[in-house]
Amino acid sequence: MGETALPQVEMVRPRWGDPSHAAELPDAARALAPEAGGPGSGVTPDEVSVPTPTVSDEMRRAVADIVGAEHVDDSHRDRVQHTRGYSTPDLLRLRAGDGADAPDLVVYPGDHDEVVRVLRICAEHRVAVVPFTGGTSVVGGLTPDRRQVTGVITVDVRRLDRVESVDEVSRVATLQAGLRGVRAEELLAERGFTIGHFPQSYEGAGIGGYAATRSAGQSSAGYGRFDEMVEGLVLATPKGTIELGTAPRSAAGPDLRQLILGSEGVLGIITAVTVRISPLPRRRLFDGWRFPDFASGLDAIRALAQDGPRPTVVRLSDELETALNLADPDQLGAESPGCLMVVGVEGADEAEVGRRHDAVAQALTAAGGSGPDLDAGEAWRAGRFRAPYLRDPLLDAGVLVETLETVTYWSRIEQLKAAVTGALTDALTAQGTPPLVLCHVSHVYAAGASLYFTVVAPQTEDPVAQWTAAKQAANEAIRASGASITHHHAVGRDHRAVYHAEIGELALEVLRAVKSTLDPHGVCNPGVLV
Amino acid sequence: MGETALPQVEMVRPRWGDPSHAAELPDAARALAPEAGGPGSGVTPDEVSVPTPTVSDEMRRAVADIVGAEHVDDSHRDRVQHTRGYSTPDLLRLRAGDGADAPDLVVYPGDHDEVVRVLRICAEHRVAVVPFTGGTSVVGGLTPDRRQVTGVITVDVRRLDRVESVDEVSRVATLQAGLRGVRAEELLAERGFTIGHFPQSYEGAGIGGYAATRSAGQSSAGYGRFDEMVEGLVLATPKGTIELGTAPRSAAGPDLRQLILGSEGVLGIITAVTVRISPLPRRRLFDGWRFPDFASGLDAIRALAQDGPRPTVVRLSDELETALNLADPDQLGAESPGCLMVVGVEGADEAEVGRRHDAVAQALTAAGGSGPDLDAGEAWRAGRFRAPYLRDPLLDAGVLVETLETVTYWSRIEQLKAAVTGALTDALTAQGTPPLVLCHVSHVYAAGASLYFTVVAPQTEDPVAQWTAAKQAANEAIRASGASITHHHAVGRDHRAVYHAEIGELALEVLRAVKSTLDPHGVCNPGVLV
Repeated sequence: MGETALPQVEMVRPRWGDPSHAAELPDAARALAPEAGGPGSGVTPDEVSVPTPTVSDEMRRAVADIVGAEHVDDSHRDRVQHTRGYSTPDLLRLRAGDGADAPDLVVYPGDHDEVVRVLRICAEHRVAVVPFTGGTSVVGGLTPDRRQVTGVITVDVRRLDRVESVDEVSRVATLQAGLRGVRAEELLAERGFTIGHFPQSYEGAGIGGYAATRSAGQSSAGYGRFDEMVEGLVLATPKGTIELGTAPRSAAGPDLRQLILGSEGVLGIITAVTVRISPLPRRRLFDGWRFPDFASGLDAIRALAQDGPRPTVVRLSDELETALNLADPDQLGAESPGCLMVVGVEGADEAEVGRRHDAVAQALTAAGGSGPDLDAGEAWRAGRFRAPYLRDPLLDAGVLVETLETVTYWSRIEQLKAAVTGALTDALTAQGTPPLVLCHVSHVYAAGASLYFTVVAPQTEDPVAQWTAAKQAANEAIRASGASITHHHAVGRDHRAVYHAEIGELALEVLRAVKSTLDPHGVCNPGVLV
Repeated sequence: MGETALPQVEMVRPRWGDPSHAAELPDAARALAPEAGGPGSGVTPDEVSVPTPTVSDEMRRAVADIVGAEHVDDSHRDRVQHTRGYSTPDLLRLRAGDGADAPDLVVYPGDHDEVVRVLRICAEHRVAVVPFTGGTSVVGGLTPDRRQVTGVITVDVRRLDRVESVDEVSRVATLQAGLRGVRAEELLAERGFTIGHFPQSYEGAGIGGYAATRSAGQSSAGYGRFDEMVEGLVLATPKGTIELGTAPRSAAGPDLRQLILGSEGVLGIITAVTVRISPLPRRRLFDGWRFPDFASGLDAIRALAQDGPRPTVVRLSDELETALNLADPDQLGAESPGCLMVVGVEGADEAEVGRRHDAVAQALTAAGGSGPDLDAGEAWRAGRFRAPYLRDPLLDAGVLVETLETVTYWSRIEQLKAAVTGALTDALTAQGTPPLVLCHVSHVYAAGASLYFTVVAPQTEDPVAQWTAAKQAANEAIRASGASITHHHAVGRDHRAVYHAEIGELALEVLRAVKSTLDPHGVCNPGVLV
């Protein structure tokens, strides 16, 4: 009973996901489209303009000698398909024909040693290296700074796609970085296991990216964040190899695995990860619950996070998101539906799942919730990977839609929500495009929770500048609230300045010293993070 | 219902704990004492010889200017009381009158800024700084390398002893580093909370040490390891302050908190930690369970760790430790008692504790366990902090006793246990002192578990050399088994070489680069870790 219904998808930028699953423009969004109509889908990938490559022929030959000429691709198509990530500005630029951040060539190494050798050659030739698994960054994590380098290559690790080992007794598996999430689940399901990591980018993203960005999936309440699942990892750097995690939960010195998790390619390229795996669930029960307002829903969700029983999935939409809940458009116009909480319980022990489900239901009823609404729970589950598909028809129609997220302590959640909502609303209203700002609690912990915002507004004539101003306002509100600039989207280029303010100058110096040690010529994903 | 029965203790080296709780020589150990009788308790602290101080008068004045002259102590007594830690070699040396590692003076700063200023002055004067909370290191973590410095001062943070804040909604508290564990629990209990961190050194150790060494307590199955509880921390370094943890569970870059946890004073001094707190338990149920052998006990304990229900405390003694269980001496000589598992369930919700307790009992019965034996469970609980007291009468009687620990994946546990037991037995037998080697599983996780060994043997004429050879053999067996050199005792000086082999040269270079950034003159706890 894995999440195997989804096939692995070869996405074609600038659109998301499996073309046969493309979404229609939601009725609820039509009102937000400009009267003049939208710009349509923009140029085709073939029409995107990419820069003239600047890597030397010597460098090309050296790389081809390492990976084989058939694994080096400098075709226009491949360069465009490795240009930037999936943030709205990234997509808007590509739709406008701007491929200025395309790599000079794309290299597909076949194993860890080839990755190390490619990194060494790149360091020697001062060529920037952008690591690539699924390419789904929404924070500018795949946009290199070309200023200090002689060229840019993308190292796409898709050929590192094996399950290296499964230790069924210890419930850990060593997975190569190029394995996409969908394929990893397929292969582990054959052995009766799951990772349990299902980010919204699941159809596109892969193991290396999960680790490099500290990804968190929708089932994090049950299975944990990806960084919590990692017991060991292997990092290729221009200076050689780091391999950590000979044993779980060592107290031998600082936990250096945590220095590599979240390093976003600036220290090298993660080539394999040893993760905890869990028995494949045999039973899943998903319910919707209604709370009169966000505050009462927050109290209920916090009680589950702190005192249990702990569901596998738990999330709480605010009033507006609940009202606009696209899986349930009939709700629109009805009286306030309150706030929808989705709670999912799954596991391998069917009786235990039933008991835990009932205990959750009892706790939520006691907390003032109405439910369970099985349809709302299953509707969420069925549509859980659909949201990214909606962006394409929205952008086609001239509707800006973007998401951002943050995390804070429970005691500051409501203040943070108000501050970010206010900042986004003010910044977009000032541009003549009052937005809708939806919000949900997407991940919960004993000490705090993440807030995930969706912003929808009519596009102005310069939607990149329009969103940049709104994002800047949100970033400032997050920083001023003492929250973190990201709970699971990572830093990339877009959060870099706020990230530096968040950790402070001395911690940043530490990170730079680590980078200088492993990447003395600064070729690893320059411009990102540090 | 906190662990407040224990008073905070001012220990007097070289003996452990509250003098009024001193232990008698256990009958079971008498047979291991040399025929000629033991050496007794050695010299008194007043008779320990300490080196002539080498710090300059200028440096003394500078430090006194910062903290106040009344908070600088260079008395013989205070220097001896800050000499090394509590490993058996540390104690044997002190008992023999060897105080060669005593600091030149002891400084007691009053706040974070004073710590930073002391560190700066020490860097300026090239004076080594040994951080000190409880002083209970058993791995040489308090033994500075004097070779590159002009003197040694110990910074005892006991005056940083406040609970800075309690956020009851988010269930986190910010605790100053000098708070001892016992006192922290007392202060939090007044607010209805517990940290839930109870290492065997609980009567002596403190918050700063917990964080600096990645401590794990006996209730780790329920409350987590100390490093898992830390949401934020403040580090004083010669280059200034690092403050991390503005929010829980950020994905903003590498988790730099994990670079400071486990850093053992080599990057600076942790002055405050924000930790998760839990409601004080209202009910505790502790049981003993018997398994026919270690293998069947392991299967049962692994099932609890992986599939639940999760107890708060769970540990499994091997056959020999069970037979020698000092809390139950009547068992000696009886037929094999099998293996004792101790399982404790506690929590604030009395009904939930009852349900979880019953579910654990059902699981253990199904796994072939016999129980519950309430006396065995309560006996363990009553004596849980007693073991360190036993060492004093044993050493007095000429019986060497020491512990060591390691951690590995479940699939390798039995091989690891055999390898370490064999190495210790061979190394001590070769010296004419065949040992008893007892073992228990002390901490469990989904992926693996720790093994905790106790070694008892008659002392030779040079017990430091005797133990050093045995420890060396154990270290090599641990490394050869692919396990980690420590699960919760840390690295210090004693594990340094093996630690370097464990993480590899390039990771060590990274750690050294971090240290050079924060401590460019190498004055922070030199000789430890890196």
